[in-house]
Amino acid sequence: MSVTGEKGPYVLVVRCPDRKGIVAAVSTYLARHDASITESNHFNDAINDLFFMRTVFRADGPEFPDLAALKEGFAPIAAAHDMRWELHDMGVKPKVVIAVSKFGHCLYDLLHRQRSGILRMDIPAVVSNHDDMRSFVEWSGIPYHHLPVGRDNKAEQEARFTQIIKDSGADLVVLARYMQILSPEFCDVLEGRCINIHHSFLPSFKGAKPYHQAHDRGVKIIGATAHFVTRALDEGPIIEQDIQRVDHSHTPDDLVNMGRDVECAVLARAVKWQLEHRIIMDGKRTVIFR
Amino acid sequence: MSVTGEKGPYVLVVRCPDRKGIVAAVSTYLARHDASITESNHFNDAINDLFFMRTVFRADGPEFPDLAALKEGFAPIAAAHDMRWELHDMGVKPKVVIAVSKFGHCLYDLLHRQRSGILRMDIPAVVSNHDDMRSFVEWSGIPYHHLPVGRDNKAEQEARFTQIIKDSGADLVVLARYMQILSPEFCDVLEGRCINIHHSFLPSFKGAKPYHQAHDRGVKIIGATAHFVTRALDEGPIIEQDIQRVDHSHTPDDLVNMGRDVECAVLARAVKWQLEHRIIMDGKRTVIFR
Amino acid sequence: MSVTGEKGPYVLVVRCPDRKGIVAAVSTYLARHDASITESNHFNDAINDLFFMRTVFRADGPEFPDLAALKEGFAPIAAAHDMRWELHDMGVKPKVVIAVSKFGHCLYDLLHRQRSGILRMDIPAVVSNHDDMRSFVEWSGIPYHHLPVGRDNKAEQEARFTQIIKDSGADLVVLARYMQILSPEFCDVLEGRCINIHHSFLPSFKGAKPYHQAHDRGVKIIGATAHFVTRALDEGPIIEQDIQRVDHSHTPDDLVNMGRDVECAVLARAVKWQLEHRIIMDGKRTVIFR
Amino acid sequence: MSVTGEKGPYVLVVRCPDRKGIVAAVSTYLARHDASITESNHFNDAINDLFFMRTVFRADGPEFPDLAALKEGFAPIAAAHDMRWELHDMGVKPKVVIAVSKFGHCLYDLLHRQRSGILRMDIPAVVSNHDDMRSFVEWSGIPYHHLPVGRDNKAEQEARFTQIIKDSGADLVVLARYMQILSPEFCDVLEGRCINIHHSFLPSFKGAKPYHQAHDRGVKIIGATAHFVTRALDEGPIIEQDIQRVDHSHTPDDLVNMGRDVECAVLARAVKWQLEHRIIMDGKRTVIFR
Repeated sequence: MSVTGEKGPYVLVVRCPDRKGIVAAVSTYLARHDASITESNHFNDAINDLFFMRTVFRADGPEFPDLAALKEGFAPIAAAHDMRWELHDMGVKPKVVIAVSKFGHCLYDLLHRQRSGILRMDIPAVVSNHDDMRSFVEWSGIPYHHLPVGRDNKAEQEARFTQIIKDSGADLVVLARYMQILSPEFCDVLEGRCINIHHSFLPSFKGAKPYHQAHDRGVKIIGATAHFVTRALDEGPIIEQDIQRVDHSHTPDDLVNMGRDVECAVLARAVKWQLEHRIIMDGKRTVIFR
Repeated sequence: MSVTGEKGPYVLVVRCPDRKGIVAAVSTYLARHDASITESNHFNDAINDLFFMRTVFRADGPEFPDLAALKEGFAPIAAAHDMRWELHDMGVKPKVVIAVSKFGHCLYDLLHRQRSGILRMDIPAVVSNHDDMRSFVEWSGIPYHHLPVGRDNKAEQEARFTQIIKDSGADLVVLARYMQILSPEFCDVLEGRCINIHHSFLPSFKGAKPYHQAHDRGVKIIGATAHFVTRALDEGPIIEQDIQRVDHSHTPDDLVNMGRDVECAVLARAVKWQLEHRIIMDGKRTVIFR
Repeated sequence: MSVTGEKGPYVLVVRCPDRKGIVAAVSTYLARHDASITESNHFNDAINDLFFMRTVFRADGPEFPDLAALKEGFAPIAAAHDMRWELHDMGVKPKVVIAVSKFGHCLYDLLHRQRSGILRMDIPAVVSNHDDMRSFVEWSGIPYHHLPVGRDNKAEQEARFTQIIKDSGADLVVLARYMQILSPEFCDVLEGRCINIHHSFLPSFKGAKPYHQAHDRGVKIIGATAHFVTRALDEGPIIEQDIQRVDHSHTPDDLVNMGRDVECAVLARAVKWQLEHRIIMDGKRTVIFR
Repeated sequence: MSVTGEKGPYVLVVRCPDRKGIVAAVSTYLARHDASITESNHFNDAINDLFFMRTVFRADGPEFPDLAALKEGFAPIAAAHDMRWELHDMGVKPKVVIAVSKFGHCLYDLLHRQRSGILRMDIPAVVSNHDDMRSFVEWSGIPYHHLPVGRDNKAEQEARFTQIIKDSGADLVVLARYMQILSPEFCDVLEGRCINIHHSFLPSFKGAKPYHQAHDRGVKIIGATAHFVTRALDEGPIIEQDIQRVDHSHTPDDLVNMGRDVECAVLARAVKWQLEHRIIMDGKRTVIFR
């Protein structure tokens, strides 16, 4: 079981009731197995009495087994502390399916970040209810699935979408300006592994045409919000938000154009954090170790 | 009627239906009276077909009468174009009454800006429903009016507040974290000349305890909004907004503390723009020439 | 000479010594020719006693001639006020040649903005000293010119580059992370119509490897600067700058990656303003009417 | 040695060569003494092979001795890992001496933050080479030391300043726009415990009149930098920086005024982090656990 050469990085993500000795238990286990911590963040949610931890480590030495054995050995410690936990090899690229409609800016942005190595992911499929983005996606070497949604075929197309997710082994689904209301059943399928970008600073301006709502209210700042998809429209746990100053001279169409950049930036950060296992759910809020 | 030496700056603020020749008419009138434009902004609201203009000028020459005569001469031009307009001598300091409750940060900030010359205003009175800020206000040489509001005396105290505004000749009333719901009648008294700071990014989190609402929703950015006071609570025309990033580790109390800086900054900018006649109402929106 | 139907928008950009009556002269001339001002900004540089103006107008009426006649009629007014001026039809798309090396992010960004209509320009050519970006550029339908620069052929390749600019009728050249030191002669060819993006917050970290310099100095914010190209390396008039927060945990490579977004954003804004004739030179500074 | 009731929070700050088992050793020691970690951050500087850790804990149980005994017990662990370390009771307020000249905005800001509990510190003395701020400082109940510096008495006044620091038991000296060049000897006295605010975005615009330098260069963003004082003027390790957008219309005097807010904000954050033991030196860079 001895190994030569450094392995990893690996990342351990933990959520458990707060009590004494958690860090000692975890770090002692890691040290005993020749693991060396390179990055670690802890957070104690005193309001709900919960403890959150993300630890990145490399391993180099005879006591480091393979990842499966490390997990197996960790399981009793996790059980003793009532942990929800995950342990990932950061060398394995997550698989991400992207959905888009007619606005391509977020899709372009994600694909260029993937190509240039900024986002470490594989993209086995792009799904769209329109055919506009086919050329760019196929030039990028990614299969394009055109699933037009009409009055009567939503359930059918959601079933196809679900099958694509399953077949591709997707770890994450990204709704990159996918302009479709999802059925509650499909939301359940996606729960916990689907990020949406909403083009407003939630909870302001939920629902349709948020930039027009923003113009009408005369706000001086517009924004975008990346959040996990849940059954409640635009109500899922918020991952990231950012804003853009505007003024009286901007028409609703100007806001639509100006908002593109902040939508791209916010969505790209949310996806990156999810790929790097930096996000932990805390009820309807998110803990994010950046 | 001849004058020697440069006069001004003066500022002319105009709002009127959009049509050809407005700028020509105004600038020709000013040029004929030896006025020299130093700063000017125009905005055409194409949606409502309105034209907005703010022009700063100095005057130096025999054709410049006094301000009263300049106004008199301008009146027919204004009438011909259906203008709402104001013409101010920027050398005259506006009078500003400030109201505060227990949180003093915005008050401190405004008074220091006034003292250091950043905000050109006179402060004839500070009004409060508490006595906490008396010492600092009186050290600053400003009369302090303690008007405690209980269950039965709101109308009475609002009448006193109204009298203070009238006696002091206030051009502007600033609610610098004044934690009282105003009666509709008092809102009418204040309409168009009263700025409030709300400690959220409106329209999110209206009403009480916005930082607690923000924490509960798990937003990643908090904000503050300066707006004109109208009868509808936290619904008046927005003047300025700004934001502050937060994360999962911040408690509601942290948000309260972190929000102070952005409240001060937003309110100070709104007051400055009003003092400099940069704000023009456009329905429930504001045009701001910065 | 009568016309029917609205024409424009057109944009008039003026720089002249400050004196009374400029606005009156210009706006009266426009009004007389049935032009209606939709947007206008004036700036008086009191330090250098200069006046800057940008006026956008539409025309609708019998007194509006064609643009050539409008220019001809304006020439004597301009001469009387010692104006440097330009008058453009905003319906005509400027031609922009883009140069790139191996980092493609700014190029991708500019091409997507062009395709989606955010940047109104035609791109007759992309020039590169490497061949990496050929596939994407050609997929976009734009001719790709590979001009590899070695020890001995710089003058020759700059001559080819100059010819491409000339043949394409380019109004603007954008150096989108083009990693070549230009000869003084080529800088002269480009002067006034070439924008470069430098990956630091100038004047900090001029020259090579600015992100490594920034890491070494331990700054907490990195930035990017778009500027006009002049003979003095990284010393030309600044058009736009923006920043990104960083911290101790970021390696120089992290800074390189994080900087990409701010480089794209800064360059895109600078190009947009130039396309919309919003930038006027004021010595080694720029006046920008946004 | 048994105790009842929760104690703390305490904060342990560690810097040492990176090796396996550091976190295990520290956290096991804390757990054995009934300490409960509430907040922790680790950072591994791979370039210099150093490990940094900040751990906040509370203690509640029979195994928690007093702080002195906890330190004593920790010393051998620290020695075994070559640690530089500090262990503080966060209930003890640090003592901070503030120096100021004629610009009072940072001083006002710090004093109001102290009064309102945002900054947990005692201020035993304010030192100034001018007498302008006496009234506000004395109204705040803080002794004011007027040490005018002329051509011949700098050494003498620096000796008095040093004595005030010594007598007051100051943990930190803050130069809140103290406009004096310090002698190398006095810099040595202050090293590691003195924060200065410089009114530019370092390394741009070192030395005198940075806002005038910024205007002259035509930058579009100004900034401020809080840094530790060292012998090299404006070259000490940077703690915090922030920026403010400006444009062509702003005169050097405008920049001076606009810069005040960002100076206050940057300095206040730097002081807060130092008071909370969040800053660790890493050569000429700083590690900051926020």
